Amino acid sequence: MTEGEYDEAYADLGATTENAMEIAETSMDIVREFVPDETLADRVRQKSVHSMGDIEFQHLLEFTGGDAVGDDEDAPVRAGARAVLEEATIVTDITMAKAGVTGRGHDCETRKAIGNGAELAAETGMTRTAASVLELDRRGVYDGAVAVVGNAPTAAFALADCIEDGTRPATIVATPVGFVKAEESRQRVRDVSEEYGVPAITNVGRRGGSGLAAALTNELIHVASDVRTDGLELDLAAETRAARESDSTDDGDR
Amino acid sequence: MTEGEYDEAYADLGATTENAMEIAETSMDIVREFVPDETLADRVRQKSVHSMGDIEFQHLLEFTGGDAVGDDEDAPVRAGARAVLEEATIVTDITMAKAGVTGRGHDCETRKAIGNGAELAAETGMTRTAASVLELDRRGVYDGAVAVVGNAPTAAFALADCIEDGTRPATIVATPVGFVKAEESRQRVRDVSEEYGVPAITNVGRRGGSGLAAALTNELIHVASDVRTDGLELDLAAETRAARESDSTDDGDR
Repeated sequence: MTEGEYDEAYADLGATTENAMEIAETSMDIVREFVPDETLADRVRQKSVHSMGDIEFQHLLEFTGGDAVGDDEDAPVRAGARAVLEEATIVTDITMAKAGVTGRGHDCETRKAIGNGAELAAETGMTRTAASVLELDRRGVYDGAVAVVGNAPTAAFALADCIEDGTRPATIVATPVGFVKAEESRQRVRDVSEEYGVPAITNVGRRGGSGLAAALTNELIHVASDVRTDGLELDLAAETRAARESDSTDDGDR
Repeated sequence: MTEGEYDEAYADLGATTENAMEIAETSMDIVREFVPDETLADRVRQKSVHSMGDIEFQHLLEFTGGDAVGDDEDAPVRAGARAVLEEATIVTDITMAKAGVTGRGHDCETRKAIGNGAELAAETGMTRTAASVLELDRRGVYDGAVAVVGNAPTAAFALADCIEDGTRPATIVATPVGFVKAEESRQRVRDVSEEYGVPAITNVGRRGGSGLAAALTNELIHVASDVRTDGLELDLAAETRAARESDSTDDGDR
């Protein structure tokens, strides 16, 4: 292609594609037509729909555990955003989830579990990701962290075991996908989340994956950004926030 | 935790988790109960179901374009496996898809488009991924490559434009997800795939994503491995393969 033709191709492409910001905004506008926009949990639901390209995915998310404000559905989002503001470590199970977590809008260290605990995996026959989680937990990495599991059910099981043994992540995002143990691993995370009050965002069913986990984590980062730059008030229970949101909508109608 | 307690936790975990190979095999066995196993395209369908955690996803895949054998549904899988055997470059749109492509079972260079074409994006206002695709195409990277687009509709549009301008990837895997332009971008890839005979694996609807794109690419790598190590015969049309598969099943019943 000559330089001239290449310039022309730019122009053609410029006409048929749109800039990424526009696409993202239009896309979220469409999502908001179908997902409520009252609570912080709603923002996470919107993000799940956006990430999965499926309007109904909003109904598959679960919000468990609590914080000082309460154990309402916003608790894991508040806890996650607070952790991001406090520059907690964000720990993913595998490289792919880590690659999906945005580098912008936060000063958290982002790291992955996989690649640690190789000896433990070899000794015990457990999966590499489960061994990695145990090894990082031994080093204290999960305490106070945003703990993200996008792929490996065994990593979610290992994380739940760590919580039973006393580890307290700031919040958990767990969305392993698949037909074997994925659903069970998320149920196990919900069980320890409820029992020990550790805030967690999980989904039910077989779907999920690293892309979803990264998207939900990015929404925690986004909420934290809104606290910092737009004065979003974090310490409200979901019900209070929804009521205020509804009041302000009423005001708008007058 | 003391060393002793830690040893005990291993044992507990070893009992409640399973090793990753077992999980993967059990999972694929479940998938094969619901997805046919006759053609190479079926293998890709199985992989999509496995990756998405959704039995019905098999019906959302499209196989277009052709190779020297024909334009049957296996053509893009044959072309992809052949490219992997010939150590073609595997080019993904973004980091996340690249992170999901296995490093084992092939000697292909794996690279991502994103991070190139920054000047072009700044000049024209097009997305960074679209500009990246155009920039790599200018350098000849996409000719003969396995071209993977998991995330960005604009990257898929740009790739389609490159094909219209004469670029010939060995095969395309395109599964952008979302509500704006994602479906349209995959339709555009199918249009150029049909018009210029470039083999492509895409999906219909709004779902998709980098995890899916990586999983399908990994199946191309897996097919290539089976050619090399298990003597899988590559140059058969889907119909011929299905008929042989059915014959060998009949033999087994006798």
